[in-house]
Amino acid sequence: MRRGAAVGLDDSVLPLDRHHLLSLEPHYAPGAMTASARSVDIRTGADRTLELLEAQVGRSLDEVETPVAVVDLDRLEANLGRLQSYADEHAISLWPHTKTHKSPEIGMRQLAIGAGGLTVAKTGEAEVFHEAGAPRLLVHYPPLGVDKWDRLARLAAEGLELTVAVDGVAPAEGLSSALQRAGAKAELLVELDVGLHRTGQVTPASALAVAQQLGRLPAVEVTGISCYPGHVREDPASIVEAVAEVDAMLRETRDAFLAAGIGCDRISGGSTPTRYLTHTTCVNELRAGTYALLDRNDALGEPDLGFDACALTVAVTVVSDAVPGQVVIDAGSKTLTSDGHHDGGNGLIVGVPDARLRALNEEHGYVDVSALQERPAVGDRLQVIPNHACGCVNLHEGLLGVRNGTVERVIRVAARGLVR
Amino acid sequence: MRRGAAVGLDDSVLPLDRHHLLSLEPHYAPGAMTASARSVDIRTGADRTLELLEAQVGRSLDEVETPVAVVDLDRLEANLGRLQSYADEHAISLWPHTKTHKSPEIGMRQLAIGAGGLTVAKTGEAEVFHEAGAPRLLVHYPPLGVDKWDRLARLAAEGLELTVAVDGVAPAEGLSSALQRAGAKAELLVELDVGLHRTGQVTPASALAVAQQLGRLPAVEVTGISCYPGHVREDPASIVEAVAEVDAMLRETRDAFLAAGIGCDRISGGSTPTRYLTHTTCVNELRAGTYALLDRNDALGEPDLGFDACALTVAVTVVSDAVPGQVVIDAGSKTLTSDGHHDGGNGLIVGVPDARLRALNEEHGYVDVSALQERPAVGDRLQVIPNHACGCVNLHEGLLGVRNGTVERVIRVAARGLVR
Repeated sequence: MRRGAAVGLDDSVLPLDRHHLLSLEPHYAPGAMTASARSVDIRTGADRTLELLEAQVGRSLDEVETPVAVVDLDRLEANLGRLQSYADEHAISLWPHTKTHKSPEIGMRQLAIGAGGLTVAKTGEAEVFHEAGAPRLLVHYPPLGVDKWDRLARLAAEGLELTVAVDGVAPAEGLSSALQRAGAKAELLVELDVGLHRTGQVTPASALAVAQQLGRLPAVEVTGISCYPGHVREDPASIVEAVAEVDAMLRETRDAFLAAGIGCDRISGGSTPTRYLTHTTCVNELRAGTYALLDRNDALGEPDLGFDACALTVAVTVVSDAVPGQVVIDAGSKTLTSDGHHDGGNGLIVGVPDARLRALNEEHGYVDVSALQERPAVGDRLQVIPNHACGCVNLHEGLLGVRNGTVERVIRVAARGLVR
Repeated sequence: MRRGAAVGLDDSVLPLDRHHLLSLEPHYAPGAMTASARSVDIRTGADRTLELLEAQVGRSLDEVETPVAVVDLDRLEANLGRLQSYADEHAISLWPHTKTHKSPEIGMRQLAIGAGGLTVAKTGEAEVFHEAGAPRLLVHYPPLGVDKWDRLARLAAEGLELTVAVDGVAPAEGLSSALQRAGAKAELLVELDVGLHRTGQVTPASALAVAQQLGRLPAVEVTGISCYPGHVREDPASIVEAVAEVDAMLRETRDAFLAAGIGCDRISGGSTPTRYLTHTTCVNELRAGTYALLDRNDALGEPDLGFDACALTVAVTVVSDAVPGQVVIDAGSKTLTSDGHHDGGNGLIVGVPDARLRALNEEHGYVDVSALQERPAVGDRLQVIPNHACGCVNLHEGLLGVRNGTVERVIRVAARGLVR
C-alpha cells in the first residue's frame, strides 16, 4: 500500500481543473472537504427529483422520462373509497398505515373520507403527518431513546392526539418522562404477538402484566391492545381460520384487561390481506396500509379486481436487446426494490403476461422474453407492477399522478426515508 | 362500494380540525390538494434527514439516534488509498463507480488521490458529479430518450469530458444528435457481454459491427470497449480462470477494432471482486465501486482484512425482546435494503458472530439470538454490516462520518435516488 497513509478526506486541496464550474450554481465548494456536508451548497437528490418530476406534468404517460413511479389516480381513489366504505359499513375505525405511500396528500385524503386517524412506524413519519394536519396518529412501533421520546412528546404538546403501541415497559417509561416534561399525554396500546413472532407479548397473561406496569406511569394511559397478523397470508379458506385464531387471543386479552380494570376500548389490528375479514373479529381499529396502492404481493386479495386494482406501476424503457431472448429495462433494485415474491421474480409487466421480470441489478431489470412472438424493441415503454408497493415508493421522492394516461400532478412522498 | 364515486383527491375541502397547525411552519396548505405537489410548503424527507444527521455531529457512536448509516472515515480512506495504489503501481486508470457512495465528497476524494475519472450509471448522477467538479465522467449505461440525450449533451457543452458506453446504435444516435445541437462531443465505448448476459454485444464480431455503425455518427467517437464481469464472483482459484476468459474476449475484440481502424485506446472493465486481477488483463480502466465501502457480499475479497475493511455499518437499537430466542432491531428493509446474500440473512452483527440477522420487515430486523449466552437488552446498541453497500446507501440522504467512535461530519449522499 503506497499511498494509504496520505489518504485523508479532510485534505482541502483538490488538484483538479475546475474552471468549467465557475458559471454553475449550485456547486460543490472546493474548501468543503473540511466542512460539515450540510454546509455544502449542493442540492439534494430529492430536490433534483422533484424538479424533474414537475417537468413531467401535462405529458402523456408514453412521454414521461423513465424509470418513474406512477399512480393511477382513479384507481387510488377507488381503493381508498372501497376500504373506507367497508369500514363505515361495519362501524370499524380505519387507521390507514401510511408506510405504503408516505404521502401527506394521500394521508389527508384518507382522513377526509372518514379515517379515524393515521398510523406511522417511525417518529420522523409522525412529524410529517402531524405537520400535514393529521389530528390523531398511532405510532405503531416501540420508540427507544431520549431523542425519539422528546420528539414524540413535542408533537403531543403541540396538540397531536398521540397513541403509541409498545410490547414492554422500557419505551413507555422514557416516553412517559418526556411527556411529563412537555406537559402532554399519550395513549398506549399493548402489542400482542398473534403469530408473526416479531414484536408483541406472546400470551394474554404477559400482555396483562405489561399493561399493569404501564398503568403506574404518569402522562400515559393504556386504552387497548394491538396486533399485526402479518403471518396470515394464506388462501381464502385457511385465512378465515387463521383470523379466527388471532381473534380468540385478542378477545382473551381484552377480557383479561377488562377484568383487571384496565381500559380496552381500542382493539387495533388487521392488515391488507385480512382487511375484509375485520368485521368477523373484535378488532375495531383497522391499520391496513398497502390497500391504497396494492402490488404484486397483495392485489389478488382484492375481490373481482385483482391486478386491475393496482394503482402503482413503474414506467420503464427498454434499454438493451443485445442478449438473445431477453430485453433489459432501465429499472432495477434502486427503482423497484429487491423485495421478493413467493413465486420469484421482481414484478409483473403490465399487459405482457408471458414476459418475465426474472432478476434485477441496481439499475437494470432482466426481462425474459423468450416466450414472446415478438420482443419489445430498444426504446419501447413498459409498465411494471412492483412486488411490494411500500418498499418501492420509499425509493422515490414523488409519484406521477396520472389520469386517463396524462400526468396530472406530482404526489410528494414527503416521509420518504424517515426511518428515525 | 358506497363512497367510491365521491372519492376525489382534488377535493379541496378537508373536514378536519387543523387549528393546532396554525403556529407551525412549514405545513401542508389546506388548498394544496388541487395544486401541484411542488407548490406544497412541506420539507422533503431529505432536508429533514440532513437536519437530524447534522445534530449528531460531535456525538459518540453510542449516542447517535438510530437507525443510521455510519462510515468509518479511517477505513474509507484506507480502502480508497489501497485500490488507487494498486492502480498506480500497474499504470491502470481507476474510474471508480460512484453508484456505491453517490457522494460528491467521496467522489472528489477519489479524483484527488489519482482517479482518472468517475463512473456513473444514470444521467442524474452525471449531473451531480459534474456540478461537484468531476472533469471526466463515464456514463456506463445506455441513455434512451430525448430528455436524457439533451441533459447529457448539456453537460458536455459545459465542459465535461463525457464518455458513454453503449451496446447498440439507438442510444448513440439520439446522443449524437443532441450533442450536435449543443455543439459538443463525447467518446463512446462499445459494451461487450463477457458472461453476465445483461447488456453488451455477445461476440467480438457483433461488437465490431456496432462500432462501425457508430463510426458514421457525428459528434461522437468510438475510443474503446467496455465490459462488466459481474458473473465472476467465484473462489480465488476459479476467479483467475474466469478473468482470463473475459480477457481473451476483450483482446479479440480490441484486435478486431484495431484491424478495422477503429480506436481502441480504452479498455474499461473490472469490478470489486476482480479488482486485484486487473493487471493480468488488457483492461486499462478499472471501474470498481463497492471497494470504497465494502459490505457482507464483497469484503472477503479484501486480502488480509476481510470484514475489518468494511467502512459502512448501520448503527441500530434493540427495540423488542418480547419473543423468546430473538431480539428485534430498529432497522429493516427500508434501512438495510432487501438485497440478498448467497448464505441468506440480511447482514452481520458486528462482534456478535453467533447472532443471526435472519429476516427483515420494513422497519424491523429479526435477530436470532438463541445461540447466545446472554441476549442483548431492549435499548442496547448494535452495528450491522449490510449485505450490499450500494443498495443500503441509496436509502440514506447522508452517512455519519465517524472517526475513533465520534461523529466527525455528515457525508452527503447527494445523488441518492437519481435513477433517471
